[in-house]
Amino acid sequence: MQPRLIVNTGDGKGKSTAAFGVGLRAWSQGWSVGVFQFIKTSSWPTGEKLAFQTLGGVHARTGQGGPVEWVNYGEGRTATRAGARADQRGLAERGWQQVRERLADQRHDVLILDEFCHVLAKGWLDVDEVVETLLNRPGHQHVVITGRNAPQKLIDAADLVTEMRKVKHPFDKGEKGQAGIEW
Amino acid sequence: MQPRLIVNTGDGKGKSTAAFGVGLRAWSQGWSVGVFQFIKTSSWPTGEKLAFQTLGGVHARTGQGGPVEWVNYGEGRTATRAGARADQRGLAERGWQQVRERLADQRHDVLILDEFCHVLAKGWLDVDEVVETLLNRPGHQHVVITGRNAPQKLIDAADLVTEMRKVKHPFDKGEKGQAGIEW
Repeated sequence: MQPRLIVNTGDGKGKSTAAFGVGLRAWSQGWSVGVFQFIKTSSWPTGEKLAFQTLGGVHARTGQGGPVEWVNYGEGRTATRAGARADQRGLAERGWQQVRERLADQRHDVLILDEFCHVLAKGWLDVDEVVETLLNRPGHQHVVITGRNAPQKLIDAADLVTEMRKVKHPFDKGEKGQAGIEW
Repeated sequence: MQPRLIVNTGDGKGKSTAAFGVGLRAWSQGWSVGVFQFIKTSSWPTGEKLAFQTLGGVHARTGQGGPVEWVNYGEGRTATRAGARADQRGLAERGWQQVRERLADQRHDVLILDEFCHVLAKGWLDVDEVVETLLNRPGHQHVVITGRNAPQKLIDAADLVTEMRKVKHPFDKGEKGQAGIEW
């Protein structure tokens, strides 16, 4: 079994949802699943989070499937834009520090770093250090990274890269996102 | 709320997993989720199926989330190739008939027709009739269709189309699929 570094990038839909679909497969294998969600706030619980927490609860109660850890590093509702940016950078740094610890501890079988490409594209972390840490992770940990604008160094390091390309999107016609589909 | 017709196509990974991720969001809203899986056999239970059946079980027991129906229309392990092809076509026709009934009954809030593009590309169903049935579905049913080679008529009819494009894939290096990631 090869531990995989998987990247879902591009301007289309499905980068995060595809990662969560892989998380379902991992859960069913009885694997430990960690979701580390950058940018997205925890104050707005998404459907995917509720579903994974439910599956983690099933594991805790019955032993079926695997355990689930889900952490968000995206708040930043401060008074000023500059303050929000500083918060986001700080949260991203804290998040990556926690992911590094999880990788070192081999806590999970699959780690999903949601919107992490966005964090790297913003320049909030040292891409070389991130790629080196990912490439040198111990054991058999699969890592799935999502977000637009994946840096080339991450693409070069990855085993599997998919670009989700927008062919047609209802937002282009002015429609709005809706519960149950977009979150 | 606009009922959406969503298509995930292309040669890359994540078409089905992204559909299942949308299914998680729908489940968390308390919506009824129907997964109608073409081509793929039911004799080989996948992680996503086990996870959704677990979530459906949680709903039945506690009322949390929504109910889940999951049906496979892909067996076709017959002695000859021609026999297998005939079986697959028959299963596809039976599957589409059942989906038509579900749509007419408005049984589900979200219907996932997995690998259905493949069925259409094979010419096993009348694309015009399929597209007309989808466009004229009653009520507020979201439909997510996955598979390579989506016919142009389906793309024209859809609200949201994403192409999953392969940038890099470990199978190109001769590696094999593995549990927990590919199924």
